[in-house]
Amino acid sequence: MSQATARLAELGLSLPEVATPVGAYVPALRSGNQVLTSGQLPVVDGTLLHPGKVGDQVTVEQAYAAARVAALNAVAAAASVAGGLEAISRVVRVMVFVASSADFTDQAQVANGASELVGAIFPGGHVRSAVGVAVLPKNAPVEVELVVDAPEQPRAVPVTRA
Amino acid sequence: MSQATARLAELGLSLPEVATPVGAYVPALRSGNQVLTSGQLPVVDGTLLHPGKVGDQVTVEQAYAAARVAALNAVAAAASVAGGLEAISRVVRVMVFVASSADFTDQAQVANGASELVGAIFPGGHVRSAVGVAVLPKNAPVEVELVVDAPEQPRAVPVTRA
Amino acid sequence: MSQATARLAELGLSLPEVATPVGAYVPALRSGNQVLTSGQLPVVDGTLLHPGKVGDQVTVEQAYAAARVAALNAVAAAASVAGGLEAISRVVRVMVFVASSADFTDQAQVANGASELVGAIFPGGHVRSAVGVAVLPKNAPVEVELVVDAPEQPRAVPVTRA
Repeated sequence: MSQATARLAELGLSLPEVATPVGAYVPALRSGNQVLTSGQLPVVDGTLLHPGKVGDQVTVEQAYAAARVAALNAVAAAASVAGGLEAISRVVRVMVFVASSADFTDQAQVANGASELVGAIFPGGHVRSAVGVAVLPKNAPVEVELVVDAPEQPRAVPVTRA
Repeated sequence: MSQATARLAELGLSLPEVATPVGAYVPALRSGNQVLTSGQLPVVDGTLLHPGKVGDQVTVEQAYAAARVAALNAVAAAASVAGGLEAISRVVRVMVFVASSADFTDQAQVANGASELVGAIFPGGHVRSAVGVAVLPKNAPVEVELVVDAPEQPRAVPVTRA
Repeated sequence: MSQATARLAELGLSLPEVATPVGAYVPALRSGNQVLTSGQLPVVDGTLLHPGKVGDQVTVEQAYAAARVAALNAVAAAASVAGGLEAISRVVRVMVFVASSADFTDQAQVANGASELVGAIFPGGHVRSAVGVAVLPKNAPVEVELVVDAPEQPRAVPVTRA
């Protein structure tokens, strides 16, 4: 069991199924030694958590929890392409879009739901941007995307005997 | 004619002129084996398509069409730097910002205008994020940016005769 | 003194201290030959410049100045990880989020505050996206993130004498 897998288990979590994209694209994709994810919503077993805008129908605590779930979905999407959780060496970047009422300005606290989960599994730090947007797909409270480092595996070299 | 060029022709499309940036930057730029584009607006021959917010002055169908146009402009910008459409091996990432009324939540359908065009020219899948923003430059309904893979061409080696 | 350092001095500027992130992440991070920054706010000596929304409480001129400050903070964050300003070979990408009133559509002019500063220090062009978002952390008028090229330094080779 890799360290990342052990840390996930310590949190009482496991990787969810990767959600089918709501459009003509893929959940995650390898580019060289990185894997990028599509924007992930806080969906659990097909149900969207806490729809609405933070500062209005959604509290900061609910949005923090939703950001954590969306980040876990994004980790699962990255792992599905990287070759498993243990193939991810670190998380490079976390982008958090927060559907916000006009006067809600604590996007940082909401985004910590994503950053703290990611940091618990992959210590070492990542860059992050958090912004408050007007509205998100399906009325989601948050959307999270990741860029992770996942070095390409050396290919098995066929051995030929003389 | 490359496959991408053939597919573009099958769609009845050709690459538009690359629009001059509305600021102190460039439309696209190579970084290693990738080309990144600036955010592209749905402009045709200098005219912005369907200004306004989706869910308000702009319908989903109009915004879908606008996303398709903005994506084509982004492909043109990428191709101008990559060394032509045939120098692009795939599209890695599509980011779609949708200027949205407060209660419009079908950003995914709008963004499919970009993803489906990109996927028709470059099959194989890309990651995508779609978010609903308050307002876009020039009152555009959508803004699209791309990251594409475009392997650097090996340089011609000068041949010296003895 | 590198060219970038000389240009910064010509502008009458120096790199500010890198602000402590308002969350569980780092200000900037190296990934291969690039350095990415977190989203940076227009903070000077701990004080946020011009809080509010552009087109409402904040003028275009104030937002332009704020974008310039946020971009300088982002350059400082990138330099702190790259190994100094002189270790940055160019700026690849500038992302500018502008907190906008519903009818403000000149995000391009605001973002020029970032692009023109970056271009004055690192000529050669960068890609840029500018979008108008509902609201930003701490009620900031703008948030700026950068991707820069900063080639990894070759490691010093220990010399062993026979």
